[in-house]
Amino acid sequence: MEVRFDHIGYAVADIREYLDEFFVPLFAPVDVSPLVEDPLQQVRIAFATLAGGERIELIEPTDESSPVSKYLGDRRGGLYHLCYSTDSLEEAVEEFRAKRCMVFSGPTPAAAFGGRRIVFLFTPQRDIIELVERDSDG
Amino acid sequence: MEVRFDHIGYAVADIREYLDEFFVPLFAPVDVSPLVEDPLQQVRIAFATLAGGERIELIEPTDESSPVSKYLGDRRGGLYHLCYSTDSLEEAVEEFRAKRCMVFSGPTPAAAFGGRRIVFLFTPQRDIIELVERDSDG
Repeated sequence: MEVRFDHIGYAVADIREYLDEFFVPLFAPVDVSPLVEDPLQQVRIAFATLAGGERIELIEPTDESSPVSKYLGDRRGGLYHLCYSTDSLEEAVEEFRAKRCMVFSGPTPAAAFGGRRIVFLFTPQRDIIELVERDSDG
Repeated sequence: MEVRFDHIGYAVADIREYLDEFFVPLFAPVDVSPLVEDPLQQVRIAFATLAGGERIELIEPTDESSPVSKYLGDRRGGLYHLCYSTDSLEEAVEEFRAKRCMVFSGPTPAAAFGGRRIVFLFTPQRDIIELVERDSDG
């Protein structure tokens, strides 16, 4: 199993407002993707790419029952997860479980990744890690 | 002002244990720096570099009065901050303040960055951002 860093997930109440009022003026992303709606996760997602190639995933809940809504609570945003990609989701999940991580969502296909499957885990440190399977071309 | 993404800050109760038991087996960093002690911040710091070049800063409080101790609370770790570098710390702080960020520490020289100055801010989303000034050679 080889995991690679993929992106930083950041929860916001309103992607457009966050981009316009805060993120774009301060961090000057070189690209912002179109918004993608993920009905399974009940979120709306956009990727902002920084000058060094780092990708920040902005995640906005579309419904109060979305897990991201619970995370946001009365906050307007927040660091939500680190995402790593893997060539074998099953193998990676097994290895993370062996290190006492707990799957709390998925595997489920993700609209933001063209249907590639994702899994969310809690680490023993109680952080959220997302794993996404890589395209077969790596 | 140009800010560049620098690293992800991750608080842990014990850097060595976290590396040995969790981070190295799962994420296979290509490099782990020696530990540096920062008496001003009352922390011990190591940088783990991932295969893609991403740097994870591991931060361990050396004293209960360290701000990181308060952050850790009864958790054993956690995503702590995103760090960006800037060529002008004063200018960057001014721009972040204009976007309603609040400085809560610094500017102060940081042992982990060879004495370059750092500032910690709360964003309006109540996340922590660190700014570090770049070397004069960029």
